[in-house]
Amino acid sequence: MGRKVFLDEEPLDDVRRRWLSRANIPRRTERIPTAEALNRVAAVDLYARVSMPNYNAAAMDGFAVRAERTFFASETNPVRLRVGEEAIVVDTGDPLPEGTDAVIAVERVHILDDGRTIEVLAPVAPWQDVRPIGEDVVVGEMILPAFRRLRPYDLGALLAGGVLEVEVLARPRVAVLPTGDELVPPKEDIGLGEIPEFNGAMLRGLAESWGAVADVFPITPDDPGFLRERVAAALERYDVVVLNAGSSAGRDDYTADILGSFGEIVAHGVATRPGKPVVLAVTPEGRPLLGIPGFPVSAFLAMEWFLKPLLDRYFGEGAPPRPRVRALLGRRLVSAVGRDEFVRVTVGKVEGRYVVQPLSRGAGVTMSLVRADGLLVVPREAEGFEQGTEVEVELFRDPAQIDRTVVLTGSHDFALDLLRSHLRRKDPTCDLSSSHVGSTAGLQAIARREAHGAGIHLLDPEDGTYNVSYVRRHIRGVPVVLVHLAKRVQGFLVAKGNPLGIRSLEDIARPGVRYVNRQRGAGTRILFDHLLRKAGISRESVYGYDREVPTHLAVAVAIREGSADVGLGIYAAAKAFDLDFIPVGEEQYDLLLLRSFVESPLGACFLEILQSEAFREELRRFGGYDLSRSGEVVYAQEG
Amino acid sequence: MGRKVFLDEEPLDDVRRRWLSRANIPRRTERIPTAEALNRVAAVDLYARVSMPNYNAAAMDGFAVRAERTFFASETNPVRLRVGEEAIVVDTGDPLPEGTDAVIAVERVHILDDGRTIEVLAPVAPWQDVRPIGEDVVVGEMILPAFRRLRPYDLGALLAGGVLEVEVLARPRVAVLPTGDELVPPKEDIGLGEIPEFNGAMLRGLAESWGAVADVFPITPDDPGFLRERVAAALERYDVVVLNAGSSAGRDDYTADILGSFGEIVAHGVATRPGKPVVLAVTPEGRPLLGIPGFPVSAFLAMEWFLKPLLDRYFGEGAPPRPRVRALLGRRLVSAVGRDEFVRVTVGKVEGRYVVQPLSRGAGVTMSLVRADGLLVVPREAEGFEQGTEVEVELFRDPAQIDRTVVLTGSHDFALDLLRSHLRRKDPTCDLSSSHVGSTAGLQAIARREAHGAGIHLLDPEDGTYNVSYVRRHIRGVPVVLVHLAKRVQGFLVAKGNPLGIRSLEDIARPGVRYVNRQRGAGTRILFDHLLRKAGISRESVYGYDREVPTHLAVAVAIREGSADVGLGIYAAAKAFDLDFIPVGEEQYDLLLLRSFVESPLGACFLEILQSEAFREELRRFGGYDLSRSGEVVYAQEG
Repeated sequence: MGRKVFLDEEPLDDVRRRWLSRANIPRRTERIPTAEALNRVAAVDLYARVSMPNYNAAAMDGFAVRAERTFFASETNPVRLRVGEEAIVVDTGDPLPEGTDAVIAVERVHILDDGRTIEVLAPVAPWQDVRPIGEDVVVGEMILPAFRRLRPYDLGALLAGGVLEVEVLARPRVAVLPTGDELVPPKEDIGLGEIPEFNGAMLRGLAESWGAVADVFPITPDDPGFLRERVAAALERYDVVVLNAGSSAGRDDYTADILGSFGEIVAHGVATRPGKPVVLAVTPEGRPLLGIPGFPVSAFLAMEWFLKPLLDRYFGEGAPPRPRVRALLGRRLVSAVGRDEFVRVTVGKVEGRYVVQPLSRGAGVTMSLVRADGLLVVPREAEGFEQGTEVEVELFRDPAQIDRTVVLTGSHDFALDLLRSHLRRKDPTCDLSSSHVGSTAGLQAIARREAHGAGIHLLDPEDGTYNVSYVRRHIRGVPVVLVHLAKRVQGFLVAKGNPLGIRSLEDIARPGVRYVNRQRGAGTRILFDHLLRKAGISRESVYGYDREVPTHLAVAVAIREGSADVGLGIYAAAKAFDLDFIPVGEEQYDLLLLRSFVESPLGACFLEILQSEAFREELRRFGGYDLSRSGEVVYAQEG
Repeated sequence: MGRKVFLDEEPLDDVRRRWLSRANIPRRTERIPTAEALNRVAAVDLYARVSMPNYNAAAMDGFAVRAERTFFASETNPVRLRVGEEAIVVDTGDPLPEGTDAVIAVERVHILDDGRTIEVLAPVAPWQDVRPIGEDVVVGEMILPAFRRLRPYDLGALLAGGVLEVEVLARPRVAVLPTGDELVPPKEDIGLGEIPEFNGAMLRGLAESWGAVADVFPITPDDPGFLRERVAAALERYDVVVLNAGSSAGRDDYTADILGSFGEIVAHGVATRPGKPVVLAVTPEGRPLLGIPGFPVSAFLAMEWFLKPLLDRYFGEGAPPRPRVRALLGRRLVSAVGRDEFVRVTVGKVEGRYVVQPLSRGAGVTMSLVRADGLLVVPREAEGFEQGTEVEVELFRDPAQIDRTVVLTGSHDFALDLLRSHLRRKDPTCDLSSSHVGSTAGLQAIARREAHGAGIHLLDPEDGTYNVSYVRRHIRGVPVVLVHLAKRVQGFLVAKGNPLGIRSLEDIARPGVRYVNRQRGAGTRILFDHLLRKAGISRESVYGYDREVPTHLAVAVAIREGSADVGLGIYAAAKAFDLDFIPVGEEQYDLLLLRSFVESPLGACFLEILQSEAFREELRRFGGYDLSRSGEVVYAQEG
């Protein structure tokens, strides 16, 4: 129980400080050919062994002479020199012949006697037009100090200086041990209860991008004895052992038992979210043993916190820190006091300001790392941040790339992925990031100028129109343009063959029928509520009304996998998963864009794609879209 | 001759624009295992093939139930469920058993009948504590768009989404052909007239750091027929051919002839310094053929200008541009109108301002790239910049590293390399950069607060003291501290055995004796001038008085290699090259430091090393140093 005292309690900085004072990767070196040493780190100071050039060389085509012979030369008193004896023909780069110490360019002499004599009309200073020994590198000079990462021209200078082999820091060896009975090697036909072991590739990639070499061991089942043997074997050949535990409760306890048996536990648990169940141990020699959580986001963070600084210290010069920017928080963020929370965020530049939107906070959501433009830390003493707070964000991407990213929010449609794809095919330095928050939240984001555009499909029940009345009502003081994207068919998605015989709203409210809903504010949810009201059916009678998923795709997947019987969504989603579809009606999906964006070069490029036949052609294949008016301006408002 | 029109005339931007419109590397793709795809660039949009997880899973240890059964549960009306039938024991991560749709944590139920029954005291919502299908990745969703460089967590997400192989952009193949009769493979015993072929390793390193694979061909002699064959052979197997011509005059002409014979010359010469004699050609299909100069700095720049943008375009997303800072120019810089000049500079941060010092401008000085912290462009319409101008510099290093670099200037001494080495051994995130401009220029740099410190050894002929009177006279309004480094012996360096029998100043003025001098302002030169004056000898009578080299080492090398007979320098230089030494006297070498630096953490670290026994011990081995008072403050001045 003594160990448990740490759990949930110790701040990250304290844990990290103790870890770095206890764990260490001892430096090893190796000699390798200089030509193969790109990006390796010098282990010792490197001195030139020869000069480059190692002789005085002519810097011009002409005649090598002894300068002294010309000291009294002038137009009226030309000095004649015998070619081959007092004046030697040299080309640029030729060594200066014995007894000479200057070069006269060929165009500055008179050539007499068929080239047997030259006439010099002005004095030449010693060493004129001579490339001196060591101009490039002087023997004995320090070319590079220890702990420098070797760049292409460093290799050139070393070879020029006769350093044909260099002593570099050996790459530390990291063993990655994935463990868990539920794990199987990644494959396409994953069975029920199986989880593909995909962390290994990520962990290896991280370690290698920090300069180590890493091997991913075969999956170890949850058998402490076997696991202990594996760790022991890994310790024989590796500098660092990373045990990637499964994510079930209690596993970190036996990870701690195992790692502790090789030395001493330095920390068990850290006051962060995600990433809490970390186990850090050292052997009696201080060699690092890391037990990191199974959830991929936790695993990523734990590696950054505890392995990267060890490798940075090993190599001397760490990678430059990630850039940081101040940005406006686009959504309220509530966080538990007592833990530093690491929130993955998208970052967009809208009207000159950076705006961040939190992504999924689940520790298991790898896609939140893939989608993230940056990381926002809510410190453990804070309860979170209000929407509109200025926060500091650590960027995963170059700010210049973020400046060229179209930021869309609002409702989800397949068209958005397709727009991204076409945008990048047109200009790969551009990108498009979309977050699916539903039409209503999208409208609000535009009202606050927090995105370039929002996909919306909001039915006005008064008159059956779409979108315009909402924009009129909710957007104030912000010039916007509403551009039509598509008409699309909405309807109920049910399993192939419609086994429950669902035809109407009444069928959905039947006992035994499981509905899957969209999140609050989504246009599709508003449509469903509207349909329920019209039919006089209460929400409470719909089993699963509170089960919310964020996209049409997720609705289709739930039905396809059998965990729901019906959901409202677009035809394209039904078609993609081979589901049956009961149409409800056609709706209008538009993009509400800031006028400043429409008028920017990025916006122009975006609209060009929207209006292109290639884009429409590809979207049409998804099915259920009427694209006859795509790209048309439906409505514009000055502000 | 038509071709010659371009030479010396066409601005870089124009050449580059035309080159990019004519040359192209067509994209090729390859399929590789996802686990091996770190840092490769996706060639197509990548979509998930399976969901992760692909089943609904328990998110807690507890009991899976059908939520409906608990809707009316309360403290007063507990609902009893039979374990194994209505409530199934699940661990975190287990698939949700058929017929259940929620999980109740084990601590929230009463267990009765030896575990055969549980009692639920509150309703459970459907999907409570269930990790839904696709929480991480949903089948069908776009994981990454084309042209994204794959990061460690991208690999994780792809494998989680069942994408076991990815189609990535193949690495373009670059052939590097070094040419020149004078070239030999790098070796330690370079002969007279031989130049080691060291550009190849640099050019390959550059191409590979931009994403290509490159091969360096064996050295091709200057034989146009053979060279043409080599280029033809390279074109069969490579996407790009880089011909690295020798540096002698006229070579770029035949390079142009050869490359032109495979297609068309796009440019011959560019209005830059260095880098002018570039030859750019394309095959009829637009494949790039580059003829780049032999001088290493020119070669580096030509690769950056003309190969990098092609590779960046190939991969879609180029590397982020180098950071830029505004900085104060520490020395006047004169440049020819009509050419953009690319000057390698050191960059230091002194009292909060960035200060740049130009390095050697020779195209042949690889060390100017190694030493450079950045690149300063003097545009072709400018004649240069005055000292003190604010200039924009492109940084080669991270600004954070520059902030942790001690900037020394002034006189050269071996101690400076050694201080650098000890500093980096103590803390590899620190560095020390020193430029050798002589004591006088060093004094001026400190007066202008352009360096943290300067090594000086300035004799006051009035009273025989060193340094203090100069500081009093020349430093105004800048708080400084003069710290003693060493007493060192100065004397004349002559070849082993002193073959010319040099004993005195008179001997140096003898005909046939060749002197090698230090640059103007160097303390050693001031000492020599003082000795000449005392002996009543004129400078004109010293042969080679105007031959200037910048360091003690360079003086020793000139004598060692036989291009000079005598020079003034420190004992350590004579010892390093096994030369004879005729002592002239002992002098005092001090470091003049800004007080703001002395009081900074970096300065404290620096002084600690200066005062350390380890440093003194190592310097003592060079010979000729009296280190008994190293690190003592000799003098301080408020300003």
